[in-house]
This record gives sequence, C-alpha cells and structure tokens, in this order.
Amino acid sequence: MPSIMAATAGRIVDIHTHMYPPSYIRILESRTTIPLVRSFPQTPDPRLILLEAEVESLEDAIKDPSAKPPGRPLTSHYASLEQKIHFMDTHKIDTSVISLANPWLDFLEPSESGPMAKSVNDEFSSMCEEHAGRVFFFAALPLTAPLETVLKSITHVKALRYCRGVILGTSGLGNGLDDPNLVPIFEALAAANLTIFLHPHYGLPNQVWGPRANAEYGHVLPLALGFPMETTIAVTRMYLSGVFDKVRELRMILAHSGGTLPFLAGRIESCILHDGQLVREGKAGKGRRTVWDVLKEQVYLDAVVYSEVGLKAAIEASGADRLMFGTDHPFFPPLTMDEQGEWESVSMNAEAVAKAVGGRSADAAGIMGSNAITVLRLDEDS
Amino acid sequence: MPSIMAATAGRIVDIHTHMYPPSYIRILESRTTIPLVRSFPQTPDPRLILLEAEVESLEDAIKDPSAKPPGRPLTSHYASLEQKIHFMDTHKIDTSVISLANPWLDFLEPSESGPMAKSVNDEFSSMCEEHAGRVFFFAALPLTAPLETVLKSITHVKALRYCRGVILGTSGLGNGLDDPNLVPIFEALAAANLTIFLHPHYGLPNQVWGPRANAEYGHVLPLALGFPMETTIAVTRMYLSGVFDKVRELRMILAHSGGTLPFLAGRIESCILHDGQLVREGKAGKGRRTVWDVLKEQVYLDAVVYSEVGLKAAIEASGADRLMFGTDHPFFPPLTMDEQGEWESVSMNAEAVAKAVGGRSADAAGIMGSNAITVLRLDEDS
Repeated sequence: MPSIMAATAGRIVDIHTHMYPPSYIRILESRTTIPLVRSFPQTPDPRLILLEAEVESLEDAIKDPSAKPPGRPLTSHYASLEQKIHFMDTHKIDTSVISLANPWLDFLEPSESGPMAKSVNDEFSSMCEEHAGRVFFFAALPLTAPLETVLKSITHVKALRYCRGVILGTSGLGNGLDDPNLVPIFEALAAANLTIFLHPHYGLPNQVWGPRANAEYGHVLPLALGFPMETTIAVTRMYLSGVFDKVRELRMILAHSGGTLPFLAGRIESCILHDGQLVREGKAGKGRRTVWDVLKEQVYLDAVVYSEVGLKAAIEASGADRLMFGTDHPFFPPLTMDEQGEWESVSMNAEAVAKAVGGRSADAAGIMGSNAITVLRLDEDS
Repeated sequence: MPSIMAATAGRIVDIHTHMYPPSYIRILESRTTIPLVRSFPQTPDPRLILLEAEVESLEDAIKDPSAKPPGRPLTSHYASLEQKIHFMDTHKIDTSVISLANPWLDFLEPSESGPMAKSVNDEFSSMCEEHAGRVFFFAALPLTAPLETVLKSITHVKALRYCRGVILGTSGLGNGLDDPNLVPIFEALAAANLTIFLHPHYGLPNQVWGPRANAEYGHVLPLALGFPMETTIAVTRMYLSGVFDKVRELRMILAHSGGTLPFLAGRIESCILHDGQLVREGKAGKGRRTVWDVLKEQVYLDAVVYSEVGLKAAIEASGADRLMFGTDHPFFPPLTMDEQGEWESVSMNAEAVAKAVGGRSADAAGIMGSNAITVLRLDEDS
C-alpha cells in the first residue's frame, strides 16, 4: 500500500477521530445493556457492543459459548493516547481533533451526565496539553441533564484551551435536532464560537435490514447505510425546522461527508417546491435559503466517504474549502494486516481526496489540513 | 421557464412515468386502509392516500372536516391516457415506458392478485397499441400469489408486444428482495429478457421522522428521504445476498438514480472489507464483484435526482450509457402554475442532465433517450 499521506503537501489534520477515556470505559464495563463492554470466553479481547443491531447476537453469545459475540474487540486503540499518537505518526497526521466516540453521554441518568461531562472534557483537555499543538478536541455535552447544566458545560468547555467544538449525536434532548428546546443550546454554541461535529449512532430501526441481516451481513447494513441515513435525516429535520435561519452563526461539520445530503439535496428541494402544505404555508418560496445555501454557508463536511464519486459530490455541494479529512480511528482497523501499520480505511479516504481534486493541489492541501486549521483555529493557542 | 426539452437532440424517452388504469382506481376507491382513494367535503378532488406517513392525518381529516386531508388530489393525470399523451407532447417526449404506480399489487389477497395482474397488464398493453411506438410499458407482477402464478404472469407479459420489463417494489414476497424464494422469479425475468424497474413505496418507519414531521413538514421527509433510502437498502440487501452473482443476467433500473447508492457505494465497500464476520467467512475477498461492478454491469439508473451534483455522481458510478431520463409523472405536478403546461419537476431533471454532461452531447442524447432505446429495445416491435 503506497503511503498517499506522505505525498500530501502541507499539514495533515484529522478531524474525525475518536477515543474513550479510561473513566468512560469503566462505565461501559459496568453496564448490562448497550452501550457496554463485556468479556466472553470465546474471544481474547473484551467486546465493545454499541449498536441496537448487535443486541440479538449479544443474547445469542451469552447463551451459547460457541456463538461469536457481536461488536468489536476493545483494543488499546480506544483508550490509549500513546496509541493515538502512534497512529498519527504512522499516517503522517500532524494534528488530530479528537472526540468521544458514540454514544457519548446520551445514555446517562440526568444526575450523572453533568459530572461525567466535566470529567470527560477535563480528561480530553489534559490529553491535549500533553501533546500541545498536535491534539485538539471536540467536547461532549451532558444532554440528558437540565438545560442549565448543559449551558454551564458549554461555558466550561469554551474556556478549555484546546477545545474547538462539541460532538453531537442526533437524539438531542430525546426528540431529535429539530426540537425547539435545543435552540438555546445552539445559540450558546454559536456565541461561544464552538463548531458542532454531528455524528450518527442510532442508525435506523432494525426491521429495515430484513430477516437475513443479522445472521448473514455482519455489521454492514447498519454501519454503511444506517449511519449516513441517520445523519441525513437529522440535518434535513434541522433544515425544515428553520434552525439554520434562527441561529445564523451555527456551524456544523457533518460526519461521513453529510451522510447522503449532497446526493439528496436536489430531491429535498424538489419535494419542498412540490409540497402542497409547505407551498400553502409560504414555506416553499423561492426567496428562502435552500438546502444548497445551508450546505455552502453553515455546513462543513468531513472527507470520510471512501470514494472519489462521493467526495466529488460533497465538494460540488459544499465547496472544496469546506471539506475536512478524517480517519474514523479507532474504528475500521485492518483485519488482514498489522494494526500498527497503515490502515486501508485511512488510505481509501486519502486516495479519494487525491483523485477527486484532480490536479488542484490547493484543494488537496485544503481538504487534508488547511481548511480545518482555518475553520477550527488550530493555529491559535486558545 | 425555457424549454430545455426542445433543445435536446435526438429522441426523448421517459422511462419513469406512472398510471393507474381505471380498474385499479376502482379498487382504491373501495378500500378503507391505505392505499386508498377517498372524497372529503373539504377538498374538490378525491384524495389519493398512499403512504404510511399519511395515515395519521387521514384519521384527523375524517374526524375534523376543517382539517386538510392528506395525500394528493386524484386528477385526470393518473388514469387518462390522453392526459399522458398531452403531457408527453407538452414536454417533447417521443416515447414513454409507463408503469403502474405504487403500491402496485402488493396489497392484494393472494387469490385476487393473479387475475388483477392479468387485467392491469392487458389494459396497459391495449394503451400501448393505441399509440404504437409512442408508449411501451413495465408490467406489474402478482407477488402475493403463489410462485406458479407469478411465473405464469411472467410468461404472459413476455408475450405482450409492448412490454419491456416489470416494475417491482422492495417488499418482494414480504421479506425483501434478498429473499432466496425470489431467485426463481429473478431467473425467469432474466431469461425472458425483462428488465426490472425497482421503485420505492414503503419508505422508512414513521418514527425516524420525529414528532414534528407530520404537522410541520408536509410529505417532504418520507418522499425526499424515505423513498431513496428504501431503494438503497433494498438493492444493498440484494447485493449482500449474492443474487447479482446467482442471476448474472439480471438487469435492474433503479429509481431516483439509485436512491443514494452512487454516494454510499464506497462506504458499503469499506464496511464489507472491514467486517470481521464477512472477512472470516470469505465474503470480503478482493476477487469478488464489488458494488461498483454491479453498478456498471447489471444496474441502470434513472436520471430523476433533481440536481447536477447527484446526476454527476450517478454518471460516475454507472457510466453515462446507463442513465435514462424520467419524469415521475403524474407525481410532483406544479402547484403554482398551470398543470397543462410545462412541469418544473421535469425541467429540473432535464436541466440537471444538460449541466452534468457539460459539452458531451452524445452523453446528453444517450441519457435523454438513446440509452433507453437500446437497453429496452424500443426500436423493436415485439
């Protein structure tokens, strides 16, 4: 595998890269429902089990010690900062903007989530200090806690030297991201100049994968389709709720190049223009800011789409100056090669960037690093 | 609105255009659950109510005569052949390959669906004879009937002079299109040289649209997102089940430019390569035919994606010689202009073709008509 990363001019920044700090792993180990970490006699590493689609196999594996447990091996890649730095060095990544992996703090009791957010964010902050300039972070918010606690948490992370935004799932306060009760949170984030990194976790209801999925298709359907569809639905609901107009300074990076938003934006616009109810209510007028406007003015996309076709669509939808490289480390490790070497999941995306920009080397440098440096102020020390 | 269609060189073919023959409308009028046609005191036209997402408002409108009924007005565009020909003339469409609109015969009792399929397909056949050379059709299959009935129906429609394929929803025999029991049907269709037109109807479970969708967003979410996501899931399940390898001569046109498949194909491939179970079972090997191969060898895409961004991705994924123009008539009529004039939903797609091909006029002529003429043998009279 040629090192596409070494051939890249300029600084390389990874804005889509996760960790579970040790305190968070301990919580997962104490749980009996997803998300959880559990050891099985049938596998050497404990298993990290996150998805609704994995629950059925979990029950099978508990009953039958010959059944393969679901989830993924919990390797040192998830919690070790040294491993993260090694991964960055291996892939010539200069700077990483790390974030808590899904499902963040979404499952915590209201009383637990405020203190846990503080602890996790302080832990991330310390990691960044250990490697000043190489590691920044997106904070986690205690969304199950009362509004006041969430707003306090925003004030707390805004003051942390290496925090550049927050990672957010699609459930919000439990009713999705088009919930009017989220507006004060979006306003506080915009006022604090904190960018939202929108990331999927919940996918789609299991039934859509059909009766064969669980036994025969591994994790492919919920991960390959459920995740990007969830992101697309969440951001379209936000758009329809008018929140991008209400909070004009809201800035949001969409995981996986927007899920499928660049491909579907045209259909969304056409469905709005042709919807009797929206036309009657004056919500389909031509003067309004379209999905395309939001894609070019308030949305950024990561470059984690694993193909030239997808990445070109993302660039055409949002502009080459709004795309940002990511790895999704520590997910998607190589299965047939050494985990300490180069990862194919990373080179697939780096190659997609090289191909999609053609000869436009400034665009390549932008996507691989300088866009993130500008947008997330990675050259500023506070 | 400039007539983009008039500026197109060569014959224009519309492969995505629906009708409900009068006998089918009568069935819908007799029903009390979706799909159904129902009159309301509050609107002049009867309403055509098709989607699970519309059921809640249906109940509201029955209880409260001031509430707006859901669905769409059942205008003459749905059942009148003369209206179809008028629409074709207005848009300079030379040839249409018409198909029964969703949900086809999916909801019929096993004993009803065989006779109804024969009746509907004969009715379509007569319409084509009335306008020989201008109208061809995709037949409907009685999928709720026993296998033998379905196979007999394939034999029947194969002999109909203007039949060029079958329209298929995603439920198959009730368990999706990755159902092994469908293989004999796919084999029979391939042997009969009948192309499948895969079309969505069921969307996604209502809960994914959130609590505000029904009251505030019209039909936008289920139509703009649910439909293409359903198609993508269905075809990905088919791919994972191996049916494209098992039935190597299977040919399938995917509605709405593949749903989102061109954009997500890279992620699907990456998820396969990184799936522990599939790797262990030898299903992720590099020698296998990838999703990209199937897109270029067995799949065609319509050009109904309403944007240059989406259409370019579709062309890059499948090739300009595999795209075929469509209108989705009689859905998405103009709401603020005369229904008898040019439709914006049509010109949006024609303009997307013109923009996406740039100066490549042979590609434009292919997508607007000649690809369909070749693939569906529209110059042959049987």
